Amino acid sequence: MLSTSPSLDALVARFSRLPGIGRKTAQRLALHILKLGTEEVRAMAQALLDVKENVRECSICRNITEEDPCAICTSPKRERRLICVVEESTDVLAIERTNEYKGLYHVLGGRLSPLEGVGPDDLHIQSLLDRAAQGVEEIILAMNPNVEGEATTLYLARLLKPLGLRVTRIARGLPVGTDLEYADNDTISRALEGRIAL
Amino acid sequence: MLSTSPSLDALVARFSRLPGIGRKTAQRLALHILKLGTEEVRAMAQALLDVKENVRECSICRNITEEDPCAICTSPKRERRLICVVEESTDVLAIERTNEYKGLYHVLGGRLSPLEGVGPDDLHIQSLLDRAAQGVEEIILAMNPNVEGEATTLYLARLLKPLGLRVTRIARGLPVGTDLEYADNDTISRALEGRIAL
Repeated sequence: MLSTSPSLDALVARFSRLPGIGRKTAQRLALHILKLGTEEVRAMAQALLDVKENVRECSICRNITEEDPCAICTSPKRERRLICVVEESTDVLAIERTNEYKGLYHVLGGRLSPLEGVGPDDLHIQSLLDRAAQGVEEIILAMNPNVEGEATTLYLARLLKPLGLRVTRIARGLPVGTDLEYADNDTISRALEGRIAL
Repeated sequence: MLSTSPSLDALVARFSRLPGIGRKTAQRLALHILKLGTEEVRAMAQALLDVKENVRECSICRNITEEDPCAICTSPKRERRLICVVEESTDVLAIERTNEYKGLYHVLGGRLSPLEGVGPDDLHIQSLLDRAAQGVEEIILAMNPNVEGEATTLYLARLLKPLGLRVTRIARGLPVGTDLEYADNDTISRALEGRIAL
């Protein structure tokens, strides 16, 4: 921003590189940091370093963790014969928030996307197949409901079905709280297709 | 977010406390930090500490600076008989970006706001009066165009005029690039009031 302080300019430049943070927001954040107490800024700097230092991938499910294997993989309370496959760690968080799912997870680390050059070898697919062969009864595919997620779902289903276990996918339909009137055609088609008996 | 990593949760919590950053954005930022290289995260932590360590207020104009007095106050190229009064340091940056103004600044550190308990003693007004008495020819009041900025402008004008110098305010009118049709009544009134001869 060309202020009278190179340190401030440097921090603004750093913030600007974060996703979704423009120059104006970066400037606002940097000026906010200026107003914080020294202790608080130190704690923030430490929090950044801690994350980089402590967080790793679980060697089993590939979710982010600080202890390997992660707390979900080692929990005696989780149903070990059930694995939910997701694209990213954030998806694990989203599902965990519901408190409904009691099985294990497998984080692919992305989705198949020929356009972005992401092929099967770039995802944690082999380790999923290895896990699937070890007494798993059901695998739930929970990819994002878009073209690439769809392709990934079909690809995985084709690999997993020959292993003789149950392969399911999460339902696509109308999100709770919306109006049928405003839903797109694709969503309504999927909702009709996935109708269940009452 | 209740992930499997306390360090990540801590960073998300830190980010959430920044202005304009909600829980979802904080989570996205924290996961982005995870993907950065160690060196880059270290540099970011250092940038935070540097700002807190190096940045101070200029003892003359109260703008943020690393050297006291600041580069603007000591510059031989600036017109020393002209002072532009602004609310915050960000306003200095905004004016500097235009490359039009060649005088000095005075940062008040806020504006008069009885509702928020900000009175004249909470702002750098006395130091402005001291500076104004030292050979200054014109003081430009550049408060934000709202009720509190207006009150501050009138208050300062009443204090400064008896010192026998020229006191001006920046123009209020239609911003460049907008439509007269969509301007609010107040803005149109000010634009008419401030009309200039062609």
